[in-house]
Amino acid sequence: MAAKTKQHLKTHFELTREYLDELIENIEADKEVEVFNMIKDLHAADIAEIYDELNIDQARFIYLMLDNEKAADVVIELEEDDRRRFLDAIPVDKIARQFIDNMDSDDAADILGELSNEKVEEIISHIGNVEQASAILDLLKYDEDTAGGLMGTELVSVNENWSLVTCIKEIRKQAVNIDEIYYVYVTDNDNILRGTLSLKRLLLANSAAKVKNISNSDVISVKTDTPSEEVANVMNKYDLVTLPVVDPIGRLKGRITIDDVVDVIREEAEKDYQLVSGITADHEPFDNVWRVTRARLPWLFIGLVGGVLGASVIGNYEDQLRLHPEMAFFIPLIAAMAGNVGVQSSSIIVQGLANNSIGLDSSGRKLLNELGVALINGLILSGAIFIYNYFIRDSFALTITVSVSLLSVVLFASMFGTFIPLALNRFQVDPAVATGPFITTLNDIMGLFVYLMIGRLMYGVF
Amino acid sequence: MAAKTKQHLKTHFELTREYLDELIENIEADKEVEVFNMIKDLHAADIAEIYDELNIDQARFIYLMLDNEKAADVVIELEEDDRRRFLDAIPVDKIARQFIDNMDSDDAADILGELSNEKVEEIISHIGNVEQASAILDLLKYDEDTAGGLMGTELVSVNENWSLVTCIKEIRKQAVNIDEIYYVYVTDNDNILRGTLSLKRLLLANSAAKVKNISNSDVISVKTDTPSEEVANVMNKYDLVTLPVVDPIGRLKGRITIDDVVDVIREEAEKDYQLVSGITADHEPFDNVWRVTRARLPWLFIGLVGGVLGASVIGNYEDQLRLHPEMAFFIPLIAAMAGNVGVQSSSIIVQGLANNSIGLDSSGRKLLNELGVALINGLILSGAIFIYNYFIRDSFALTITVSVSLLSVVLFASMFGTFIPLALNRFQVDPAVATGPFITTLNDIMGLFVYLMIGRLMYGVF
Repeated sequence: MAAKTKQHLKTHFELTREYLDELIENIEADKEVEVFNMIKDLHAADIAEIYDELNIDQARFIYLMLDNEKAADVVIELEEDDRRRFLDAIPVDKIARQFIDNMDSDDAADILGELSNEKVEEIISHIGNVEQASAILDLLKYDEDTAGGLMGTELVSVNENWSLVTCIKEIRKQAVNIDEIYYVYVTDNDNILRGTLSLKRLLLANSAAKVKNISNSDVISVKTDTPSEEVANVMNKYDLVTLPVVDPIGRLKGRITIDDVVDVIREEAEKDYQLVSGITADHEPFDNVWRVTRARLPWLFIGLVGGVLGASVIGNYEDQLRLHPEMAFFIPLIAAMAGNVGVQSSSIIVQGLANNSIGLDSSGRKLLNELGVALINGLILSGAIFIYNYFIRDSFALTITVSVSLLSVVLFASMFGTFIPLALNRFQVDPAVATGPFITTLNDIMGLFVYLMIGRLMYGVF
Repeated sequence: MAAKTKQHLKTHFELTREYLDELIENIEADKEVEVFNMIKDLHAADIAEIYDELNIDQARFIYLMLDNEKAADVVIELEEDDRRRFLDAIPVDKIARQFIDNMDSDDAADILGELSNEKVEEIISHIGNVEQASAILDLLKYDEDTAGGLMGTELVSVNENWSLVTCIKEIRKQAVNIDEIYYVYVTDNDNILRGTLSLKRLLLANSAAKVKNISNSDVISVKTDTPSEEVANVMNKYDLVTLPVVDPIGRLKGRITIDDVVDVIREEAEKDYQLVSGITADHEPFDNVWRVTRARLPWLFIGLVGGVLGASVIGNYEDQLRLHPEMAFFIPLIAAMAGNVGVQSSSIIVQGLANNSIGLDSSGRKLLNELGVALINGLILSGAIFIYNYFIRDSFALTITVSVSLLSVVLFASMFGTFIPLALNRFQVDPAVATGPFITTLNDIMGLFVYLMIGRLMYGVF
């Protein structure tokens, strides 16, 4: 562990075209020393980023140069697709001994969770360390979207009845197998979680102290079946770096670290973002064509069906349109505004529900608030279009129709957008499905209906 | 710090209507003991959540019961609006001595950054601890969206030339003022960052060792002017809990902790989510009406202008519509599909750019990939609408027009949606502005144009 002084100002690595071209050139020319020098100081996450850009033979060239621990870290950092491709090219006993044996139990369980059952059994039968194998099997039982699915079993725990001297001896013993320790957990004789011992307190404590007396009993924990979204909210709310996980009677089963939860937060945010954009299933920017198609087509079909319904609505007013074809001019404007307003209202509610910022008082007063916003926006917008049409268009009936229906449509769309996600949430349906194409389509049809009906009325009057 | 055994199974607090009603009742009845018992075991974040639901007098009733450190923690956890309201009701010298003095420098700087310059000066002049005051003044100089704006100055650092014994003595001294230590930073005589010392290694090390020999020199750091988005990406990529911040010549200036970065990640995700939904400026679900209006109206105006332009496009085809009013039926369908496809394509690009997952090869091949998806989706959708219209509609010209233009519009919209954010990104404009209403409006107009043009052609032929 001698200090490598020339690295003292190391910042993070950024993958460039030039670097990659040089690397590939060296790999193709079989220049092992050059390749090794290019990658030897890189973090596993950087090597994973490079793997993404290489073909399987080039990736294997690099993989053969890595020690087992680094190779395992790289596998953890790969994108799911790349990992599957990569692991398919490697014999199961190597996967077990080189990768799984060198991973934290939670990472190992995550990766095995992506593979077929037979392959998992085969791999586990090849794991050298029995303790690791049984920890992984335990973890695989939990739903991946719960605290049990997120947690790892690598932790340091001490008995509350120990003396500080025994405690430190024990910590040293347990710590050898663990990457990093931030907290030491304190349990009683039945392995029930009783508190935490921060390393700071351990350093500052008088060596005559007992564990019980220097531990902090104010420990927040979650159960193995706590949903991961709730885990993320708890860790975020209380600014926690690790969170202990207990079983129904309070026995310590594992710990969740913040880096896993950051991934949950990112994934949740991405899921909501994709839903509002009309994309289901988690898909990366350039997944394969079929996967992308599958993620998008259902939403486009909702739009198509909405369009067909819209066509029937307009169809009922065919004679009206034959007489006043100028009414068709503003169909896109009304539909677009209905869609935009609906998405604005629904997405802010969905976001508020997702990050728990709506608070207790989610009904009456707040719907009124939203209605107030819609009224102001609606009045401004319909005023603007009134002035424009008044000077540009010949038909006063059209001018009145567009303004009155725009105001009505903004009010309706905002009510639908607010109410529908709140209602879905009350009935335990993920409110995020009500954003994007769904709310847009619904509001489009509503908008057309309102516009054409008001048009018929107004052309009768003016 | 005696163990409070009755709390050993504490899970996180959830605010209920019943709890809140009881609390408010007790506050209004001036029952200090009851109120104290209700709040005494709560975490600062929970009390902040309760504050959100109270009026200023009720909040003050609770605040007077808290010790200074807890009161300061509660202020940190409040929503920005509530905090401003709350701090306005408290004299500046109390703000300085009760709150700012008891906060980490980064939290103090964040909160002062929200106040007016005069108020900040006044508060700082009342801070008792000179070191804290100057640390805060230093931090206030940095842009809040950079590593300097995120970092705190509370850290433990040791000299690489020290012996382990001196080192531990020094750590004990420095640690007293710091909430939690995860890493100890190692610097040279010029305060240049040379490495880290994990507490694990400190516990495991032989007491005869020198700091230099047990420290890890592979330390990733950022500069004070590194943008916070990049900080978040680095911490996420390398799974870091803390990240040291250095000045241009490598001197250690502070450290960023993961909880601050989780907030950055959430805010970035919320910003992008709001942009795709047509909302600017960070607004919470139920902000005041004017703020919400201001965040939404500009996007609605884009939609309005787009609608007006759309009206002119259709206006050019007035005679056509008078002859064939049924052409108007499918205007909303074409516009909606153009909008949906455009948002799908653009949002996946924006997301990929935001989380750096697009990789190096962002042009040619990937545009082709997107075009492939559009072609498949377009063929399926236009096939479906062809079959529907063929059996339902009398006009074959209309049937052909809708199908051909739907396919063209899907292809065009997907190209625009892919290309525009990539182009904006190349010109250093935040590509997220090109999602939502902007891309929808653009594609709406394009869709109308294509539809009506193809319609004129087809009605000429069939």
